[in-house]
Amino acid sequence: MLFYMISTGIWHFADSLPVVAPHNRITLGEGHTPLIASSSIGAELGLSQLYFKLESLNPTGSYKDRISAMALSLAKQSGKTACIGTTSGNAGASIAAYAAKAGIPYHVYVQENIIPAKLEQVLVHQAHVYKVKGLGFDPAIGTKVFEQVRDKAIRNNWEAVITAFAYAPLAMEAVQTIAWEIADQLGVPDAVFVPVGGGGLFSGIYKGFHRICEQNKASKLPRMGACQSAGCSNLVRGWQQGLGQPAAGASTSMISGIQVSNPPDADIVFEALDSSQGVGSIVADEETWKWQRELARREGIYCEPAGAISLAGLVQAVETGRINRTDKIVCIVSGAGYKDLEQQRLMVQEAAATIPLYDADQL
Amino acid sequence: MLFYMISTGIWHFADSLPVVAPHNRITLGEGHTPLIASSSIGAELGLSQLYFKLESLNPTGSYKDRISAMALSLAKQSGKTACIGTTSGNAGASIAAYAAKAGIPYHVYVQENIIPAKLEQVLVHQAHVYKVKGLGFDPAIGTKVFEQVRDKAIRNNWEAVITAFAYAPLAMEAVQTIAWEIADQLGVPDAVFVPVGGGGLFSGIYKGFHRICEQNKASKLPRMGACQSAGCSNLVRGWQQGLGQPAAGASTSMISGIQVSNPPDADIVFEALDSSQGVGSIVADEETWKWQRELARREGIYCEPAGAISLAGLVQAVETGRINRTDKIVCIVSGAGYKDLEQQRLMVQEAAATIPLYDADQL
Repeated sequence: MLFYMISTGIWHFADSLPVVAPHNRITLGEGHTPLIASSSIGAELGLSQLYFKLESLNPTGSYKDRISAMALSLAKQSGKTACIGTTSGNAGASIAAYAAKAGIPYHVYVQENIIPAKLEQVLVHQAHVYKVKGLGFDPAIGTKVFEQVRDKAIRNNWEAVITAFAYAPLAMEAVQTIAWEIADQLGVPDAVFVPVGGGGLFSGIYKGFHRICEQNKASKLPRMGACQSAGCSNLVRGWQQGLGQPAAGASTSMISGIQVSNPPDADIVFEALDSSQGVGSIVADEETWKWQRELARREGIYCEPAGAISLAGLVQAVETGRINRTDKIVCIVSGAGYKDLEQQRLMVQEAAATIPLYDADQL
Repeated sequence: MLFYMISTGIWHFADSLPVVAPHNRITLGEGHTPLIASSSIGAELGLSQLYFKLESLNPTGSYKDRISAMALSLAKQSGKTACIGTTSGNAGASIAAYAAKAGIPYHVYVQENIIPAKLEQVLVHQAHVYKVKGLGFDPAIGTKVFEQVRDKAIRNNWEAVITAFAYAPLAMEAVQTIAWEIADQLGVPDAVFVPVGGGGLFSGIYKGFHRICEQNKASKLPRMGACQSAGCSNLVRGWQQGLGQPAAGASTSMISGIQVSNPPDADIVFEALDSSQGVGSIVADEETWKWQRELARREGIYCEPAGAISLAGLVQAVETGRINRTDKIVCIVSGAGYKDLEQQRLMVQEAAATIPLYDADQL
């Protein structure tokens, strides 16, 4: 029996993160997520070293918890009296939990038809929720709401928490800890595939590996794989077409969490793809749902659809010959299955409808 | 930046667990759960050292994952072709996930009116589910079903997985890792409060601390606090009344997961209470629901009701003067909030009904 473990969340890496005094550090045990070797899907794809990084096992079920831990600690340190933002669900549940832990009120704007289960996961932590007509559909309304977030934050000495480097660069630094943990668990891999909506997760992981290279702890970046839905592929298309900005077009994707048609972190995403011999994958929602099912059925990993698009994108890259089958590859599984209960019901409705009912004597 | 972490789940403690060859060890990253210091509730109760052990952050959201990792590894090692059992939900979701990871089919009997969300979490991993009339209500049917589980397991070379020391003592050894992790994170505490249904979780934690004492790594057991619902308090009443067996009476508790009127691990529970100057708490379901809400609102910890009964039981012990307020105390939070979506809806229905709707111009 060994005695070694201490649960310090992202603060294990405090020396490499924005400075927060120990008494201001908030943690709910985020990070230190498992890296699990594939037992079935990798072999079928002919991949010899496939791993899943289970960000779905963070305290509120998504990688957002790393950002929230940093954001609320910064808010506490600078004496902010509340925090404020917008959410489609996961960031809101995460910030609400960490705000509760910090004893700081959280005000959050959501779209009128937010998924009920996602709303509930925000409300259990007693956040102050406000619905806004047209938010999530009309880009002009989105801009207006964001201006309100900024204005109210400045006017009231509140912390604005938006999970993008473009808006909250210090809090987003915490996303790098994903890369640092992978490097520690496995060494720097040959390729990392990441779900991409606004680009913050992808950018943070790239920055983390970039830092490792800067410190001469590795000689080469992993190839960064950006995985987007065919219904919302503005970043990958913008990069592939050399536009220097996201391609245009509203989102028609059904995958909650990555429906971001005006991705704020485009510049870092393009830099990462350019400098790492990156790979862009654009996959149909049906493929993402298929790999979500396969992860649950064959690997025992139950994630939300957005968490499976990294695997769907990798499969496409392998089948089109853009990835070496002997490479050491990590797929980021960004969020937990229970985040999307509508999809859960669809996944199992056929099986649920055909469960036999027996008398105990008939078994 | 430090590089230290490897995700080996319960196998970090392999030297102290039943022998499983490395190539037969199954893990999804269970264990290594956070131990979080209370930031608000402890101070209000006048407790100087209150901690929460978040078993809710295991891969499928409950401590059962530690047992499943061991059970499926043992099944694989002994060449079993399937596993079989019964469940009210959490064990089933856990075993189903680990069976999927191991590539071993899982057959499971459930009651006719199993909570839909709990059923879905079993089905996503493609378990073979069978409903049985009267299971969960009629003890005679429960006995019959259990005989079927044993008979089928023996006849077919399947592994019977029932999460109790009385039925699966080797797999249950893995529960001790909770105690070993706490000892590592904090040292051996003065008291540990545990949700008690069948008694397996409580027994395993006691055994883990007992082992630490046997190895002379600690001089004293923590006081073991057994927390039961007033609607299903057969173990605590049996101990308090000196019956030498559980008290009689069907369960009327509404708290899913601890409604066990014929607890199989009574002998170990009584031994633990006797030898550790133990404490029994019997709390009304309303108290448990109240502390579930308070944990979410004030500590950022969202657990299912059964996971909050350890805190409810501690509060009772403190208020009745049975626990020293300066003691180092750990409450085990056994399962995640998303396990009980009916309760989730109840928790937030008032808040959800009063969310204001604004035009963006009105904000």
